[in-house]
Amino acid sequence: MNAEILSIGTELLLGDIMNTNAAFISRELAALGIGCYYQSVVGDNAGRLEESIKLAFSRADMVITTGGLGPTFDDITKETVAAYFGLEMELHQPSYDHIKSFFERVGRAFTKNNEKQAYMPKGATIFENNRGTAPGLAVEGKGKIAIMMPGPPFEMNSMFTEKVRPFLQARADKIFLSRNIHLFGIGESAAETLLNEAIPNPPQNPTIAPYAKFGEVSLRVTANAQNEQEAQSLLDPVVKEIEALFPKYVYGIDVKNMQSALAQKLLEKNLTIAIAESCTGGLIASRLTEIPGISKSFLCGVTCYSNESKQILLSIDKEIITTHGVVSREVALEMARAVQKISGADIGLAVTGIAGPDGGTPEKPVGLVFIACAGPWGEKVLEANLRRGLSNDRDVIRNMAALSAMNMVLRELNML
Amino acid sequence: MNAEILSIGTELLLGDIMNTNAAFISRELAALGIGCYYQSVVGDNAGRLEESIKLAFSRADMVITTGGLGPTFDDITKETVAAYFGLEMELHQPSYDHIKSFFERVGRAFTKNNEKQAYMPKGATIFENNRGTAPGLAVEGKGKIAIMMPGPPFEMNSMFTEKVRPFLQARADKIFLSRNIHLFGIGESAAETLLNEAIPNPPQNPTIAPYAKFGEVSLRVTANAQNEQEAQSLLDPVVKEIEALFPKYVYGIDVKNMQSALAQKLLEKNLTIAIAESCTGGLIASRLTEIPGISKSFLCGVTCYSNESKQILLSIDKEIITTHGVVSREVALEMARAVQKISGADIGLAVTGIAGPDGGTPEKPVGLVFIACAGPWGEKVLEANLRRGLSNDRDVIRNMAALSAMNMVLRELNML
Repeated sequence: MNAEILSIGTELLLGDIMNTNAAFISRELAALGIGCYYQSVVGDNAGRLEESIKLAFSRADMVITTGGLGPTFDDITKETVAAYFGLEMELHQPSYDHIKSFFERVGRAFTKNNEKQAYMPKGATIFENNRGTAPGLAVEGKGKIAIMMPGPPFEMNSMFTEKVRPFLQARADKIFLSRNIHLFGIGESAAETLLNEAIPNPPQNPTIAPYAKFGEVSLRVTANAQNEQEAQSLLDPVVKEIEALFPKYVYGIDVKNMQSALAQKLLEKNLTIAIAESCTGGLIASRLTEIPGISKSFLCGVTCYSNESKQILLSIDKEIITTHGVVSREVALEMARAVQKISGADIGLAVTGIAGPDGGTPEKPVGLVFIACAGPWGEKVLEANLRRGLSNDRDVIRNMAALSAMNMVLRELNML
Repeated sequence: MNAEILSIGTELLLGDIMNTNAAFISRELAALGIGCYYQSVVGDNAGRLEESIKLAFSRADMVITTGGLGPTFDDITKETVAAYFGLEMELHQPSYDHIKSFFERVGRAFTKNNEKQAYMPKGATIFENNRGTAPGLAVEGKGKIAIMMPGPPFEMNSMFTEKVRPFLQARADKIFLSRNIHLFGIGESAAETLLNEAIPNPPQNPTIAPYAKFGEVSLRVTANAQNEQEAQSLLDPVVKEIEALFPKYVYGIDVKNMQSALAQKLLEKNLTIAIAESCTGGLIASRLTEIPGISKSFLCGVTCYSNESKQILLSIDKEIITTHGVVSREVALEMARAVQKISGADIGLAVTGIAGPDGGTPEKPVGLVFIACAGPWGEKVLEANLRRGLSNDRDVIRNMAALSAMNMVLRELNML
């Protein structure tokens, strides 16, 4: 079975709102193993909506719409779909009662146009709306299914989860399961090249697909099977093979992001951390403190931007700064030691670098970063040039430095 | 002229990423006065992409695509569009050099598949990519225009703004000019209601449109005219009228965001700042240090997450913490004073609060935040409950606290 998503609403075409519904439904369909080859957006216009519905049914077994179920004159989804299936509209009494009592509850007038929301194509399956007035519905016929849901995401999400998902599950014959292998320090094309060399004839089940996001690459392995156990046994060997292929780059499997992987490991090992930041300006601390419960591990952060603040807050010897420069291996290490000592944390992590656009010299160009950590494994320093020559290099350098620093500690923790 | 947006990428169909590109481009097209009746999403599949491009050109004068310009085998946008226009592909030497030097700079191997990104349909207009390797391009013919941009939003946004918008403006018969009035502390519907009451018959030129983003609302005023001067004279009185309508909420006009407004004001007034953060965990420091040149104003930040670190780093009297609790008016103020004193900064800013999900009590619930600042204006403390009852409340509380804190200092600076 394959489906197509049709989002209805002029506000989407004007870019006034983001189409979060399409992303939500797509994710749900993928998890249900229902293919989806197209998403479309069309405005509240009868002719174009009719054309879009015909087109979608010419390409897919099922069309899922959001929007256009409201009370006003330009809400025409149900009527247009009913016309496609050749069905008449009739009053659905339970929906009428539900909407009427909703208006009574919130003390608003039940106007004539609200009745419209209770008229349904004959024979439709109705999905009650727990969070608003417009019911959802499904219509089947001609070997096709149309599912219509309201546009507001918080109404749609809950209707999908509670009503539509079970409706679809009852019609599905297999399940899909994915695992995500997260890599840091390798680009998408290099990862793909390595993967193609190692697995020249990739399997059809599970499939392997690379995805790039800022500074990292994920490899998603997806199996389809009759049940979860069978899917897992298809996934396991392939995930292991890929892990073995990228020993230097894998930082987590099925983790949300770098900071959650690091937080999880710190809490698991029951170790505390303190962070001294210069060019990253508090970015590492702010990322790590996104994670609920991190206060058990994260003690404090110091963003010493000015040279003076490095002396005041961390008591870094002025001579070390003068001799080696503030962006140096030595200062990074001193910062890590100092923040570890001051806070009494098990781990001290420090970053110093030149984020630019100004402040670079021929010897110490923009992008040069030193990352140091001190912990149960001893002391380590990493030197990198993170400049990409892009117009947003300052952001890139800061974010890459933050990721590199977290990755550095994570790798050490994994080896403990 | 009307346009259609075609977003290309299997990851969109799987719901792995949100289609922010379509919303961004739609908004830009609306501002340029270019109609848009359809948005579509299609995967990295040659046959379906070809069908989608044909369909889009059967409905629109211009098709704007994002995605499918990468180096891998499944990136086929250029080739498919070239086939539609009957054009051959040829090496575009400047793009080749640009990509090659990018790889050299970052020290990564320039693999064979990267060359692909430099092949372009004959006669195409090339849009250089300042933020990545894939150039964008435009192809014209048969009375139609195809514009192709890379998929990653931060590459696409900057390419659109710097290259595609001028390309489109040069083809338009009038110009559109916008000004954005940025509000903090008022919701979108409240802002709209106030606006409707004050301006019951909104003008057609300029138009006024509200946009909400996290924690703030922008009112975009757009005029169309024969030239910039004429557009400005249409905009000025309306912008002034709106400013006067929201004196408590306007934090900037045509600013990028709260941190850039604050940085600009600090640098302009030649004042220095130091920040002590608890629940925001370095978020304010990291936001402020996004801004190039901020090292002239921002001296240091301290993220004192544990109680001990508040004593160690800021020498906060243990008794104040014991008497009033760590989340209190008194501790916030002590933190602001301490960080101001230690750093010698003109302004000390501090935040203490409960971001949750744990740590709340009946007297001090999750979401309670105290923000204090000490500066040339004296001392101020703000108490707020920032909880929204949403599943991502921790993020909401942290981000709202950071925005509120920056807004607080900005308002004081504006009154100096």
